[in-house]
Amino acid sequence: MPYDRLDSDVSMMKEAGINVVRIAESTWSTMEPQDGVFDFSHIDRVLNAMNKAGISVIIGTPTYAVPTWLVKKYPDVLAITPKGPNQYGPRQNMDISNIHFREYAERAIRKMLEHVKNHPAIIGYQIDNETKSYGTSGPNVQSQFVAYMKERYPSLDSLNKIFGLDYWSNRINNWNDFPSVNGSINASLNAEFAKFQRSLVTEYLGWQAKIVREYKKPEQFVTQNFDFDWKGYSYGIQPEVDHFAAAKVLDIAGVDIYHPSQDKLTGAEISFGGDMARSMKGGQNYLVIETEAQGFPQWVPYPGQLRLQAFSHLASGADMVSYWHWHSIHNSAETYWKGLLSHDFQPNPTYQEAKTIGADFQKLSPHLANLKKQNQVAILFSNEALTAYNSFGPGTYNNVLRPMYDLLYNMNVGVDFVDPSSKEIEKYKLAIVPALYAAPDSLLQRLNRFVKNGGHIVYTFKSGFSDEHNKVRTTIQPGIIGEACGIRYSEFTDPGKIGLKNDPFLVGKADNYTEKWMELIEPTTAKVLAYYDHPAWGKYAAVTRNNYGKGVAIYIGCGTSTAITEKILETAIKSAGLWGKDQSLRFPLIVKSGINQQGKAVHYYFNYSAEPRTINYTYQKGIELISGGAISAQSKLTLPAWGFRIIEEQW
Amino acid sequence: MPYDRLDSDVSMMKEAGINVVRIAESTWSTMEPQDGVFDFSHIDRVLNAMNKAGISVIIGTPTYAVPTWLVKKYPDVLAITPKGPNQYGPRQNMDISNIHFREYAERAIRKMLEHVKNHPAIIGYQIDNETKSYGTSGPNVQSQFVAYMKERYPSLDSLNKIFGLDYWSNRINNWNDFPSVNGSINASLNAEFAKFQRSLVTEYLGWQAKIVREYKKPEQFVTQNFDFDWKGYSYGIQPEVDHFAAAKVLDIAGVDIYHPSQDKLTGAEISFGGDMARSMKGGQNYLVIETEAQGFPQWVPYPGQLRLQAFSHLASGADMVSYWHWHSIHNSAETYWKGLLSHDFQPNPTYQEAKTIGADFQKLSPHLANLKKQNQVAILFSNEALTAYNSFGPGTYNNVLRPMYDLLYNMNVGVDFVDPSSKEIEKYKLAIVPALYAAPDSLLQRLNRFVKNGGHIVYTFKSGFSDEHNKVRTTIQPGIIGEACGIRYSEFTDPGKIGLKNDPFLVGKADNYTEKWMELIEPTTAKVLAYYDHPAWGKYAAVTRNNYGKGVAIYIGCGTSTAITEKILETAIKSAGLWGKDQSLRFPLIVKSGINQQGKAVHYYFNYSAEPRTINYTYQKGIELISGGAISAQSKLTLPAWGFRIIEEQW
Amino acid sequence: MPYDRLDSDVSMMKEAGINVVRIAESTWSTMEPQDGVFDFSHIDRVLNAMNKAGISVIIGTPTYAVPTWLVKKYPDVLAITPKGPNQYGPRQNMDISNIHFREYAERAIRKMLEHVKNHPAIIGYQIDNETKSYGTSGPNVQSQFVAYMKERYPSLDSLNKIFGLDYWSNRINNWNDFPSVNGSINASLNAEFAKFQRSLVTEYLGWQAKIVREYKKPEQFVTQNFDFDWKGYSYGIQPEVDHFAAAKVLDIAGVDIYHPSQDKLTGAEISFGGDMARSMKGGQNYLVIETEAQGFPQWVPYPGQLRLQAFSHLASGADMVSYWHWHSIHNSAETYWKGLLSHDFQPNPTYQEAKTIGADFQKLSPHLANLKKQNQVAILFSNEALTAYNSFGPGTYNNVLRPMYDLLYNMNVGVDFVDPSSKEIEKYKLAIVPALYAAPDSLLQRLNRFVKNGGHIVYTFKSGFSDEHNKVRTTIQPGIIGEACGIRYSEFTDPGKIGLKNDPFLVGKADNYTEKWMELIEPTTAKVLAYYDHPAWGKYAAVTRNNYGKGVAIYIGCGTSTAITEKILETAIKSAGLWGKDQSLRFPLIVKSGINQQGKAVHYYFNYSAEPRTINYTYQKGIELISGGAISAQSKLTLPAWGFRIIEEQW
Repeated sequence: MPYDRLDSDVSMMKEAGINVVRIAESTWSTMEPQDGVFDFSHIDRVLNAMNKAGISVIIGTPTYAVPTWLVKKYPDVLAITPKGPNQYGPRQNMDISNIHFREYAERAIRKMLEHVKNHPAIIGYQIDNETKSYGTSGPNVQSQFVAYMKERYPSLDSLNKIFGLDYWSNRINNWNDFPSVNGSINASLNAEFAKFQRSLVTEYLGWQAKIVREYKKPEQFVTQNFDFDWKGYSYGIQPEVDHFAAAKVLDIAGVDIYHPSQDKLTGAEISFGGDMARSMKGGQNYLVIETEAQGFPQWVPYPGQLRLQAFSHLASGADMVSYWHWHSIHNSAETYWKGLLSHDFQPNPTYQEAKTIGADFQKLSPHLANLKKQNQVAILFSNEALTAYNSFGPGTYNNVLRPMYDLLYNMNVGVDFVDPSSKEIEKYKLAIVPALYAAPDSLLQRLNRFVKNGGHIVYTFKSGFSDEHNKVRTTIQPGIIGEACGIRYSEFTDPGKIGLKNDPFLVGKADNYTEKWMELIEPTTAKVLAYYDHPAWGKYAAVTRNNYGKGVAIYIGCGTSTAITEKILETAIKSAGLWGKDQSLRFPLIVKSGINQQGKAVHYYFNYSAEPRTINYTYQKGIELISGGAISAQSKLTLPAWGFRIIEEQW
Repeated sequence: MPYDRLDSDVSMMKEAGINVVRIAESTWSTMEPQDGVFDFSHIDRVLNAMNKAGISVIIGTPTYAVPTWLVKKYPDVLAITPKGPNQYGPRQNMDISNIHFREYAERAIRKMLEHVKNHPAIIGYQIDNETKSYGTSGPNVQSQFVAYMKERYPSLDSLNKIFGLDYWSNRINNWNDFPSVNGSINASLNAEFAKFQRSLVTEYLGWQAKIVREYKKPEQFVTQNFDFDWKGYSYGIQPEVDHFAAAKVLDIAGVDIYHPSQDKLTGAEISFGGDMARSMKGGQNYLVIETEAQGFPQWVPYPGQLRLQAFSHLASGADMVSYWHWHSIHNSAETYWKGLLSHDFQPNPTYQEAKTIGADFQKLSPHLANLKKQNQVAILFSNEALTAYNSFGPGTYNNVLRPMYDLLYNMNVGVDFVDPSSKEIEKYKLAIVPALYAAPDSLLQRLNRFVKNGGHIVYTFKSGFSDEHNKVRTTIQPGIIGEACGIRYSEFTDPGKIGLKNDPFLVGKADNYTEKWMELIEPTTAKVLAYYDHPAWGKYAAVTRNNYGKGVAIYIGCGTSTAITEKILETAIKSAGLWGKDQSLRFPLIVKSGINQQGKAVHYYFNYSAEPRTINYTYQKGIELISGGAISAQSKLTLPAWGFRIIEEQW
Repeated sequence: MPYDRLDSDVSMMKEAGINVVRIAESTWSTMEPQDGVFDFSHIDRVLNAMNKAGISVIIGTPTYAVPTWLVKKYPDVLAITPKGPNQYGPRQNMDISNIHFREYAERAIRKMLEHVKNHPAIIGYQIDNETKSYGTSGPNVQSQFVAYMKERYPSLDSLNKIFGLDYWSNRINNWNDFPSVNGSINASLNAEFAKFQRSLVTEYLGWQAKIVREYKKPEQFVTQNFDFDWKGYSYGIQPEVDHFAAAKVLDIAGVDIYHPSQDKLTGAEISFGGDMARSMKGGQNYLVIETEAQGFPQWVPYPGQLRLQAFSHLASGADMVSYWHWHSIHNSAETYWKGLLSHDFQPNPTYQEAKTIGADFQKLSPHLANLKKQNQVAILFSNEALTAYNSFGPGTYNNVLRPMYDLLYNMNVGVDFVDPSSKEIEKYKLAIVPALYAAPDSLLQRLNRFVKNGGHIVYTFKSGFSDEHNKVRTTIQPGIIGEACGIRYSEFTDPGKIGLKNDPFLVGKADNYTEKWMELIEPTTAKVLAYYDHPAWGKYAAVTRNNYGKGVAIYIGCGTSTAITEKILETAIKSAGLWGKDQSLRFPLIVKSGINQQGKAVHYYFNYSAEPRTINYTYQKGIELISGGAISAQSKLTLPAWGFRIIEEQW
C-alpha cells in the first residue's frame, strides 16, 4: 500500500456493502521479516479496523510465497522441476514436501494463529492458496515417489509388467536403480507420478488444515481457494489437484473463477466453476474466494455485467462473492490487473456498480443465501483419465469435457460433477462421460450396471480404452463398456474433416462434420445413429445408441461438431425424460433454479446479451426479488441487456 | 506382452504367411536385468516357437536402449548434448563412444550371441537400430574430436586459415585451448564436427559388426536398420549418418520407411527409401526392416493400400517387407501406433489384407525376389553438402533434393543415388545434382569431366559454392563447375516471388515463378533458357544450358516452382536421350521395372489413386503374375483404385 | 583473408574513392595469439599500406570478442545470463564487468596503442563495438547490483516500499538475503536492474575511452559504433544502452544503420538512426560506422539505391559513410552477408556504383560535409520508459515510437531526439512524447511548464502512468500531465478493434479504427477531438486537445490507426505553426535541408520509389551539386527512380 488509507478503505468498503475481507495470504515476508522475528502489526491493524466496522475477516495462512531469508538459508526449499531448479521470485516456487519448508511454514502458521485466534473479526481460515505441486520432482520428491511405489507395488516384476517397462529397456530390476521420472517416456509411470503429485497436494492441505484446527474456534471454518485449468481464464478440470480428495479436509469449498467479459461474457465459467465447487463438497454451498472486478484490461465489465456476474454466482449456489482485489496494485507483476478500485483509489464505475450489488445482497440474503439445487444430470470426470488422455490426445481432456458442459449450460440443463470416488453416481438419471480414457474395471462395470438399472449415459470416443494404469486394454474396444454400448471396434483413424452420412442429425451441411478422431465402430446390439460419409470407412458407425437393461447408452466414436454434439445431448436428455420447460430457453437466456432457506423455489433468469429480451415465465406465480414486483404464473418477463430477474415462487 | 499368447501369435503369423520375425532389439533390461545377470529365456522361447513353425528370425543386438542399472552405475553412459546431459528414459540417449557403454554393450552382445549362435531359426543379425550419434558432444566426444583434428590438421596455423577462425577472434593457437564445438558459430568447424559425429556412427557399427562376425555362421547376414531424415515420415537424406560409408560393414542393407497414407499415399517415400537402400550397397537388394501396418491413426490404410505398398517395395528391389510391429503396444510411449494387430490381438481388416500379401509373396517369390534394376539417371547427394547447405539455407538441403526426386518419380524415371565416394558416377547418362554447396575441387573437376565425356547434368543453385571445408570459393561463382555450365555470377539475392520472362517453360501464369533464392547469372558460353522478369534483375539469367565437350550441363540458378523444375528435368531427360515409353505415364500411374531371377523383365504398374484407371501396356507380351492372366503386347491394362498389376514378359 | 591481396584491395579502394578504413576490431586472438604474446604484424601491414595509399585508418580496440586461451584460463570471463553460463564461440559473450576480462582487455588495448600510436595513418579510435551488457547477470553482476542498490537506497524499509516488495512475499529484510534478480517478477526491480546494466555499458566505454585517451593524439578522435533495437534491421531505441549517457565519453558519435532494401527501401531507418546519432552529441555531425553494401541476399541494392542511401546519410548530418564490409567473408557465421566485393573480390555492380559515390564525395565534400540542421520538433524518448513499458505492453515501446517517427519522416518534418537528461527540450516548438510510461514527477512537471510557456506536445496513451520506479501513480490518471492535458481517467480497457465516433479525422471507414488499448478518458478542461464508437464506452474521449497557458497539449488515449495518428500529428504540427513548404511533399518524396560549411542552405530531394517524379522546388535559386546545373527558384525538379537532387542555394 503506497500510503496509509485504511480508514478510507474501510469506509468505502462499508459503503459498497462489503461484509467480508480476506487477508494475510502470501505475506510471509512481512509477517516474519527475519528468521524467527515475527511482526503481526499489519494483521492486527486490519483485524481491528474491520472488527470496528463490522466486517468479517478470512485469514489466509501465508505459505503460498516464501521469504527471501528462508531461501537464502535453505535453498532446497525451492522446488526442482523438469526444467531445473526454481529461482527465487515467483510465488508457488517451493517444494511443498520439503522438510525445511514444512518446518518453517508450520512455525509461521502456529505463530500467526496463536496471535490472532481470539480475534472476534475472524470467521474462517484459508489454508494456503491455489495450492498445487508446481511440478516439484527433484530428488526429494523422487525418493518419496519410490517409497510410494514400493508400498503399492512390492513386486518389481509385477510393476514392470503392469507399467510395461520392458519397452525401450526401461525395466527396473532393483529399487535402487529407479531413475528419475522426469526423463521417463512411459506414460503409465508418468500418470502414476502425476497422481502422486496430486496426492502431495491433498496431504499438504490436510497437514495445514490439521494445524489450523488446533487453533480455530468451532464456528470458524477452514477453506481453500481452488482454481481451475487455466487457458487465459478458468477453463476446465484442474490437472494438478484432485479436488474431490483435497476438499475432504475443508469445511467449505472455495474457488476462484476468472472468465472473459465484455462481449465474451457468457456465464459458462461461473456455472462450470460453481458446479464443480458445489459438487466437491457433495452439494454444499461454496465461497467464490476470488473473481474479477475490472481484471485484465479486456475484461473491464460493461455497465450491468458486474451485477449479472454476481447474481450468476449465487444462482449456482455460491454463498459469497469476493473480488480479487480491492484496489489495483502499484508495483511488481500485476499492475495491469485492476481491482474494484483503480490505482487512484477513487470511486469508479465498477465500484459504483458494486455498491448496488452490496445493497441488494444485504436486502435479499435471507432469500438468496444457501440455495439448494437438485440436478438429474451428472458429468463424470476423472483426474486419472485426464492425465492419461492428455498423454495421447487428440487435443486435451478439457477440450472434450468443456464443450459438452457448455452445451448443457446453453440448454439450461443443470449438472453436478461426479468423479470415480463419488458414492452417488447412481442417483442421477443421465451421466455424461467424456473421454474416460483410463479407468479400472470396477468403474466401468459400475457404469454398465448403472445403465442396466435404468440409467442413461453418453460416452465419447476413447472412453474405456485403457485400465487405471494407462495400459491399453487387450480386449476388443471399447472394452468393458462395449457391453452396455453394444459396439466393438479394433481400428481407429483420423482422416481429417469428414461428414456423417445423410446428415443424420439434421444440422445442415456446414455443421455436419467430424474431425480429429474416428473409431471404426461395428454395432453388436446397438442401433447406429450415424455412419461416416467416406469411401473407405462408410460401413462403420460414428454414433450409436443401445438399450441395455432398463437404460440406454449412447456412444460418440468421433470428434463431432458442436452442432452434432448438441443434437446428441438433446437426444440423450429427451431419452432420459429430462426435457422440460427450461429447455424452451437457450443461451443467451439462462435459467437457474433452487430452493432457498424458506423452502421456496427461486428462479434466476439471466440475459447474457447486449439486447433486451422478453421470455415466457413458466413457473408458479411469485415475487421478483430485486424490484419486489409480483409475477403471474406463465407470464412474460422482460430481461434488460446484460440483465436478470430473480423470482421467488409464492404459493 | 500383457499375457502369454505366443502360440496364438505364431499361428496367426503363419496364417498371414509371415516367414521372418525380428526380435530382441532394445531388450537389454530384460536380457540383463542386473549387472552381469543374464536371462535369455524370452529369446529362447521365441526362437524355439518360430523354429517349430518354420519362421526365420533376425536377432537384433539389444544396445539401442540402455538398462537402468547401467546408468545408475555409470551416469556418463548418457550422452551430453548441446542441450545438456541426457536424462534416463528415452531410447537412443547414450554416448555411443563412451567406454562404459562400449564395455557393457560388448559383454551383452557376446553373451547373447554365445547363447543363440547355434540356433537354427536365425537367418541374420541386426546390429543396433536406427543408430546415430544422437548429438553426443560432451567432454568425452570433444577430446576425441580434438585428437581427430590434430591428426588431420597438424598445423594450427593451417587449421585457423582453412576454417577461417580469425573471424570473431575464434583462433585456436594452442591445442589445449580448443573450446567445445557446442558453442561455435564457425560453420566450417561445425560441419567438420558433424562429419566427425557421422564417423562415430560408422565406427560404432563397424565395431558391432566385427563382434557379431566372430559368432555368426557364414550363411547368416549382418544388417542394420537405417532410417531417413524425419519430417513426420521418412523424408530425405539422413543428416546424422553417412549411409554409404556405414553400409560397408553390412552384408545387406536394411531400412525403415514410413510414409503418409490414405489420401496422401503416393509411393514416393517407398521409392525414395528403396532407391537409397539399393544404392548404398551398390545396387544389391535390400530389406525393408520396418514399415507401417496401421501406424499412426491417420495412416490406417484404406482397403487395398497395404497390398499396394508391399508390392511397391518389391518393385524398388526390396527382398523383405517387415512391419513394425506385429501387435500394438499397450503401455509406454507409442500406444497410438498400431501394428498389424490392434491391442486386441484379433484379426482386423489390416491383418486380413496382410494375409493376401503373404499368400501372394509365397506364390510369386521366384518371380519377384532379387529384382535387378538398371537406371540411367543418378542423383548425386552429399552429406557434406547437406550439412553445409543447412548452415545457410534457404530452407534445407532435403527440401531441394526431395522435390527433384519426386518429380523424377512422378515421371517414371528410375534413379539410383550416388555420393562423392561412388566409383560409378560416370556410368550414368544423366546426373541430377541438387545444392552441392560444399565439395572438394576434385569432385567438381570430376563432374566437369563427366560432362565433357558426354554426360548430362542438372545443377541447382548454390552448387559448387564452397570447398569441402565450407569455405566459400574465392573464384567467380559457381567456381569450378562454371566451366562446364558456361556461366558466372558474383551477386545473388532474394526478391520474394518473381516470374521468368515470357514464361519460357510454358507452365502458365500461376506456376511461372521462382522464389527464395536467385543468382544473378551471366552466361559465358551457355545458352540462357530463362531470364528473370524483374525491373532490376531482368538482364540476368535464371536457368541456363551449356554444351560442354560431348555433354550438356543445365544450371538452375533460383528456387523454381515445381512446374518449372519439372519442365527443366523433362528437358534434361530428353536431352540425355532417356525419354521413353514409361514417360507416357505420370503419377498417380507409376511403372517400375527390373529383371528377375529367371532373367525376365518384370513390370509393375501401380495406381496411386482412388479411381480405377486404364493404361496402355507398352512392353512385350507377358503374364500378369497375380492373376496368372496373359497380357498381349501393346494392350490395355486396367488398374483398380489403389491397385496394381505385375507383368512378367514372356518371350 | 584466404590469400594475400592487400595491394589489390588498396588499389580497388582507391579506385572507389575510399579514404578511410576501419580495422582491428574483434581480432584479439590474432593480435594476442597466446597469453602475453603479441603480434601486430597484420595491423602494421595494413597501416603501412593505407598510409602509402593516402587512406586514413580508424583502429578498433579488439575487445568485442575474446580469445580461446583467455576463456580457458578464466572461464568466468564468459557472462552468466538468465539462460545460464555462456559458451565460447559467439562474439559479445563476455561479462564486461569481470575483473579478468578487464585486466586482459586493458593490457591488450595498451599494448596495441603503444605499438600503433605514432602511426600517421590513424585518424581515430573506435572503442569496442556495438557494446551492450549482453544480459550479464551472474553472481559477479548481482553483487555489484546489490552494492549499487545499497548506495541508492540505504534503507531497506524504504526500498521495500518504493519497489513494492511486499507483493508475493518478495521483501528483502537483510542485504544478505538479496536474491538474484534473474528470477524476479517485480517489474520495478527488473527495471532498476536493466538501468544498472545500461550503466555497466556507460562505465565500460568510459573506462576504455580513458585508456585510449592516454595514448591518442589531440587530433585523433574516439568513437563507438552504437547500434539500434534490432528487428531484422535497425529498428528503434536500443534498450540495452543509454546512448545519451554513453556518448558523453566520445568525441564523435558513430552508429551502424542497417535497413531493408530493394522495394522495401524507404530511407526511414537512415533518417531515424541519423537523427539519433546527431542528437546524442547535441547536434554534432556523426559517423556511419557500418551500413550495408550488398548485405543480406534480399538487400542487394537495385541500380541507384546505393547512391540514394549514401546521400541520404549525408542529408541527416553524417560525415562518413562506411560499409560493413569491404569484401564478403569466406568462412564462419556470416558468409551469406555480402560486402562491397563478393567472395570473388572482382568488381561487381555494387562496387561499380560505389565508385561513383566516392567520386561525388570527393568532388562535393566542401559543400556536403558538416551539414548543420535546425529542427523545431523533438521526440522525447526515455530508456526508463522503454523498459517499463515493455514490462506491460501492449506491444513494445519502439512499436509506439517508430510509427510516429515514420509519419513525421513521411511528412518531411525534421526531428531531433531528446531524452529526460536533455537540457534543451524547451527550445523546441513541438514535442512528441510516445508512451512515457515511467517518469519522475520533475520531468512531468517540466513538460507541463513547457506547455504553459507556449510549447506544443503530443502524448500517447500510458504516458505519465508510473513514477521513475515503475510504480503506478496513486493519483487519478494520467497523473501530473493530466493538468496540461485537461483530462482524467480511472479505467482502461481493450475491446479489440473499434471505431471513433463519426470518423472525426476523416480518414475513411477502413482506417477509422483504434485497437490494442483504450483509456476511458473524461475531459476536465480539454476539448474532445474524438469519442469511441462503442455501446458501452461511447461517452469516453479517445483523443483530446487542451489549451494550457500559452501552449497546447494533445493526448492520444488509444492505439490509433496509422491514418488517424498521421492526422493527429498533422493537427499538432499546424497548431505549432510548423506546417511549411516541405509538407507539400510526402513520402516517397523526401526533402532534407541544412546549412553547409559555406553557410549556404542545402536541400536534398530524394525519390524513394521506382518511378521518376517531378516536383516543385520551393526554395531560392541554386545549383544542383551533382550535375552542376542551375536551378531557378520555384521551378520544377525531376527525380529519377531511386534518384535524388542536391541543391545549394545561391544568393
